[in-house]
Amino acid sequence: MAENIDPSLPSDDGVRVKNIRHSLSHIMAQAVLEFWPKAKLGMGPAIENGFYYDFQFAKPLQEQDLQKIENKMKELILQDQKFIKKDITKLAAKKLFKDQPYKLELIKELPGKNVSVYESEPAFAKASARQGFVDLCKGPHVKSSKEINPNAFKLTKLAGAYWKGSEKNKMLTRIYGLAFATERELLDYVKMQEEAEKRDHRILGKKLDLFIFSDIVGKGLPLYTEKGTAIRRELERLIVDEEIKRGYKHVCTPDLAKVDLFKKSGHYPYYKDTMYPVMKVDEEELILRPMTCPHHYQLYLAKPRSYRELPFRIAELAKQYRYEKSGELTGLARVRCFCLADSHIICQKDQAENEINLALKLIEDMAGIFGLKSGVDYRYRLSLGDKKDSKKYYKDDKAWDFAENVLRKVLKEKNAPFFEAENEAAFYGPKIDIQMKNSAGKEETAFTVQYDFVGPKRFELVYADSDGKSKEAVVIHRSSIGAIERTMAFLIEKYEGAFPLWLSPIQVSVIPISEKHAEYAKEIIKKLKDNNLRVELRDENETLGKKIREAEMQKIPYLLIVGDKEISSGGVSVRQRTKGDAGQVQTDEFIEKIKKEIKEKT
Amino acid sequence: MAENIDPSLPSDDGVRVKNIRHSLSHIMAQAVLEFWPKAKLGMGPAIENGFYYDFQFAKPLQEQDLQKIENKMKELILQDQKFIKKDITKLAAKKLFKDQPYKLELIKELPGKNVSVYESEPAFAKASARQGFVDLCKGPHVKSSKEINPNAFKLTKLAGAYWKGSEKNKMLTRIYGLAFATERELLDYVKMQEEAEKRDHRILGKKLDLFIFSDIVGKGLPLYTEKGTAIRRELERLIVDEEIKRGYKHVCTPDLAKVDLFKKSGHYPYYKDTMYPVMKVDEEELILRPMTCPHHYQLYLAKPRSYRELPFRIAELAKQYRYEKSGELTGLARVRCFCLADSHIICQKDQAENEINLALKLIEDMAGIFGLKSGVDYRYRLSLGDKKDSKKYYKDDKAWDFAENVLRKVLKEKNAPFFEAENEAAFYGPKIDIQMKNSAGKEETAFTVQYDFVGPKRFELVYADSDGKSKEAVVIHRSSIGAIERTMAFLIEKYEGAFPLWLSPIQVSVIPISEKHAEYAKEIIKKLKDNNLRVELRDENETLGKKIREAEMQKIPYLLIVGDKEISSGGVSVRQRTKGDAGQVQTDEFIEKIKKEIKEKT
Repeated sequence: MAENIDPSLPSDDGVRVKNIRHSLSHIMAQAVLEFWPKAKLGMGPAIENGFYYDFQFAKPLQEQDLQKIENKMKELILQDQKFIKKDITKLAAKKLFKDQPYKLELIKELPGKNVSVYESEPAFAKASARQGFVDLCKGPHVKSSKEINPNAFKLTKLAGAYWKGSEKNKMLTRIYGLAFATERELLDYVKMQEEAEKRDHRILGKKLDLFIFSDIVGKGLPLYTEKGTAIRRELERLIVDEEIKRGYKHVCTPDLAKVDLFKKSGHYPYYKDTMYPVMKVDEEELILRPMTCPHHYQLYLAKPRSYRELPFRIAELAKQYRYEKSGELTGLARVRCFCLADSHIICQKDQAENEINLALKLIEDMAGIFGLKSGVDYRYRLSLGDKKDSKKYYKDDKAWDFAENVLRKVLKEKNAPFFEAENEAAFYGPKIDIQMKNSAGKEETAFTVQYDFVGPKRFELVYADSDGKSKEAVVIHRSSIGAIERTMAFLIEKYEGAFPLWLSPIQVSVIPISEKHAEYAKEIIKKLKDNNLRVELRDENETLGKKIREAEMQKIPYLLIVGDKEISSGGVSVRQRTKGDAGQVQTDEFIEKIKKEIKEKT
Repeated sequence: MAENIDPSLPSDDGVRVKNIRHSLSHIMAQAVLEFWPKAKLGMGPAIENGFYYDFQFAKPLQEQDLQKIENKMKELILQDQKFIKKDITKLAAKKLFKDQPYKLELIKELPGKNVSVYESEPAFAKASARQGFVDLCKGPHVKSSKEINPNAFKLTKLAGAYWKGSEKNKMLTRIYGLAFATERELLDYVKMQEEAEKRDHRILGKKLDLFIFSDIVGKGLPLYTEKGTAIRRELERLIVDEEIKRGYKHVCTPDLAKVDLFKKSGHYPYYKDTMYPVMKVDEEELILRPMTCPHHYQLYLAKPRSYRELPFRIAELAKQYRYEKSGELTGLARVRCFCLADSHIICQKDQAENEINLALKLIEDMAGIFGLKSGVDYRYRLSLGDKKDSKKYYKDDKAWDFAENVLRKVLKEKNAPFFEAENEAAFYGPKIDIQMKNSAGKEETAFTVQYDFVGPKRFELVYADSDGKSKEAVVIHRSSIGAIERTMAFLIEKYEGAFPLWLSPIQVSVIPISEKHAEYAKEIIKKLKDNNLRVELRDENETLGKKIREAEMQKIPYLLIVGDKEISSGGVSVRQRTKGDAGQVQTDEFIEKIKKEIKEKT
């Protein structure tokens, strides 16, 4: 349909669309007050892609109320309301908003003697309970509701939101809306969102039965089902076995320690806010660890070490605990306990360059297994410190220079696509971040390789050199496939749940055509299980078509159909995901084929 | 040598040897005061196999002081001291012990007006700083030090001990001694101790570099080295893979939860004392889990379940946290965080018998891998509740009867060696305990299979039966190889560190005869590593003999010696643990042979 907007206005005018969004939040509040005159108003700003407004209702709002409000908003828009700014005294404002406690709070906090309000004045007077609407607001707004396309906005959802974002305050009801200048932009955005949702790991995780959250267990603490755990296990064993092959010493250290350990490491002041609280028992003060480094140093320090033992590459699939704010928790991508494929390489200063190179090589090889390429799917960031900020960064200018140069040299010599970023280092040294795009196209740090010259000092990580003298080591912190949780979130979205065979929670579904083929199907299942394959039997009393459809919905790589024909030949009929019917083969032949496919991780 | 004891006294007289031990503690205090006249005396009782006395010294005692004290004690014993009891008034006692604050504290606490003291009166007066010794003591003692064999006791160690065992009090120095009636008994005991130490997992763990403890990490929290972790990993993968083959759903759930979860499960009041403290953050009260059951129930409850899904066997290698008293911590056998091969089988009531049977079969098969046999190395205990104790046990007489009968039936029908024990059940139902002897010959509960009718009620664990009705399930709790830590402790002692090939941290040591064979040795190492074998290279500049001896000390199953002869034939010379030289073979042949041995776990 045609857009009823003044065609002289450019559609991509950022200011204009922001004014539209902000004005819509006023119109929404106006509509809400028509239905619930006693509702209390919080704040209502324009946001990316739309707007919201926070309300306090006497009774909770229902999802179906949104349509009602939206309809009323369209009606108000068509009234050609003018948005008129007025400066009034605080005294007058207090009188005007005497029934609006949140507005009164804001008036009190605002500087100066006057405040500005915006009045929406209906152009066509109408027999309505309330004529127009006034809100405490510094603007700007559209001049008239005529500038708003009533088909280019949409109310989307209800959410709880604390007044001023603080958990100490009352929880209000937030109504979100989308809004654009044109209906086309709205439709495009909604479609893009639907596409993103289709691959959203939280939605797929539920649909494919990979993990759940439970209110009584706690926020940000996923519970993995049998299927989700199968993926975790594959990833965990892959990385452990590969790292061992590459000369890492895989160890196992406790998830907690005395708080003294983190005071000594210097982590405590920097990470205190996201660390779990101290647990006092008997003579000890224990705390869940936010990182693994100081535990690993204890293993190094258990004996005097010689230069012959370096590089000493300690690795662990280590659980780490950080108390993220509940608003920041996102499925598996942001959790309160994660399992990092972590490592600390204790080496001589002149071994650091080679070790960093090897660490980057491992990261690239692992990413390669998932089809990710340097320069295409990810790039490198050289994250530097700030010598002027000795509060945030350990003060040792020479050490920073040396370390930054080592990292820069590695990146230059491998011709890696990289950029430099100031003020992104760790407190103990500079790092290389592997920046990867997530499924929404946003670049995030997936893995890091860090140079640390502070840990060795704090913990006296020394070795006897070939000349017999005691020398200080350096530490390279690095991950290889990052946190298992986050990597899983990433892979679920990347594959949209259709995992490669080796990662598939169920690799083969065996489907007997009818009840009388169930016995044979069970024999096949046993054979597959004996070969350590993950299988399921679909012997429900359903039509073949329905059983196939359901297995396909679960994105299972191979379906084996068995009936009279297969029984007489001792084989199976294979249906391959996306490729469809692949004909009949002998069972052993099928097993050999897919075992090869699993081994090759294709 | 001949014993200088009145031969008319029986050597195994328990009272007599106790009197000897107690008298030795007085003589030790007497000796200590001769060297440190200002030492303050705590208490000094007889204990199993010996005695101790607690002292407060101005300067810490050294290990080498023990010999000095022991010599002085022998001297005092030979003086034929008489032990004479006297009753005196508290007033007199206070005067007598005016310089001994701990004795004064005891006098104050004792009931009545009089107290008893023991005086040791030297029979031969001697020009010594102190003549005799007097201690607050109710006895009894030997009549004369003549009854004590000066060669049948031995001071063994120094330890810290809080006054009256309370951490709130001052730490005193405790001196321990062994004492027996005869020298032969002392020597036998010392020898037995040395034998036990040789296989003590704490000592072997250090010698074989398997794990460490660190003061700054905390008590009861082991850190596993690369080698210890290899053993853990083998055990973990073994049990996970085997359980999956047997139809278990392996899951992964968080190590902590809101305390509400354990209040709901009913664990909180029962286990509160050994649970870690609650961590309050934001709106949540979190706690480290002491067990896994309620987490697993959440996964079951994620969907409505049908009878077709039962038995629903959830398993996990689950970390669990219990705060054991520091005095009870013992290497890996008693820790503050352990990883249990745990499972909860949610099933129909009439499936319970079969599930218990299968669980016992799994336990037996796993124990069999370690060469342990039912009736020889372990037996079963049917642990019953007590219907009269409704505080300790959930009140439901009918349910107890039913469950106890199911367990009894299983044990009877499998002709298992078992005995019944009252008042040993869990609060939620009876159980079968697998009782195994530890290396010291003491019987302990290694694994359990528990019947639970309380959990299903508390969590409404129901299923839709074939008739469409909702029915309550029962839960079988069981372990398969118990806690990995404890099982490791057990296996280290059982094998005395000489693990079977599949469990060995290092499976093959490659030893080049001289420097010029190092290159070839490295090729062999690479080949072995490519076959996922755990290997080490001994290319230090040492004699061949020394390198072999050191590898043998580490109890490595296979040593491969390579020199000119092996290079020219492309093979290796094999030395097998305990069997010695096994001749020269082709490298590939050796690899095939030991891969087979690993697979068969022989």
